Amino acid sequence: MRIRAATADDWPAIWPFLREIVAAGETFTWDRDATEAATRPMWMLEPPGHTVVAVDDDATVLGTAKMNPNHMGGASHIAGASFMVDPGHAGRGVGRALGEHALDWARAQGYRAMQFNAVVETNTAAVALWRSLGFEVLATLPEGFHHPQQGYVGLHIMFRRL
Amino acid sequence: MRIRAATADDWPAIWPFLREIVAAGETFTWDRDATEAATRPMWMLEPPGHTVVAVDDDATVLGTAKMNPNHMGGASHIAGASFMVDPGHAGRGVGRALGEHALDWARAQGYRAMQFNAVVETNTAAVALWRSLGFEVLATLPEGFHHPQQGYVGLHIMFRRL
Repeated sequence: MRIRAATADDWPAIWPFLREIVAAGETFTWDRDATEAATRPMWMLEPPGHTVVAVDDDATVLGTAKMNPNHMGGASHIAGASFMVDPGHAGRGVGRALGEHALDWARAQGYRAMQFNAVVETNTAAVALWRSLGFEVLATLPEGFHHPQQGYVGLHIMFRRL
Repeated sequence: MRIRAATADDWPAIWPFLREIVAAGETFTWDRDATEAATRPMWMLEPPGHTVVAVDDDATVLGTAKMNPNHMGGASHIAGASFMVDPGHAGRGVGRALGEHALDWARAQGYRAMQFNAVVETNTAAVALWRSLGFEVLATLPEGFHHPQQGYVGLHIMFRRL
């Protein structure tokens, strides 16, 4: 597996699993029925944002991440990032590799911290992964997320210094 | 003082004090040198957002607030809001009146909570005002804001249920 900058040619490989993840409505605070046209510019970022893909030896896209300033002005030293791993390639360390890459990218760009604004508390695999990469749950918005099966659950804000 | 929906005609009265507040760089996480063209659509919101002005008996604009969904999808029941009071009209309860209005608006729109993403901890008047309106500091991003005089200070995330 290697991670490289995403290009416009990668979008057709990203969209099917991104749509599946967003439509499930369990982990992302996005409209579940967001169109491809609305979603593409939200994921395929222009600078100062950055979007990458994790690809297999045969060039299959396994997952993707986007990273960007989380705030502007006097708080623009805090980065944010989002991650999507193709469910068909789960359990292979793709999310971890993308997370490590995002941290490296943010450090190289001069950010001082990374903040995740909305990690659904029932997404325990993600919460555990981010904890293992040095993030802490700084706060939990009570009933901050409406899960399609579990109803209102907490929404974590996770943070780590770089 | 009364509070009403802002119209395009209000922008020329808003921009001078909004620019002054943003340029000071002490309370807003916006680019200090943001242009009028870039700033106007960030403040004068289209639905589902909403922008209001507080006006005096002689129609002078004393302050303004914008309110909007803070998240999308499964977290779109959490509202956000931002407030600007003309420094020339500080100390008259304009911020409190706008805050109460924003809470009423959010309740009427069916939001279940309001979250402020970035309240600079040295902006003690604002922190005290929001506390008095039922908000709590849910978390503080350590060194989350670079204050032009005080250097890195904390950035509060404030929250209240509706």
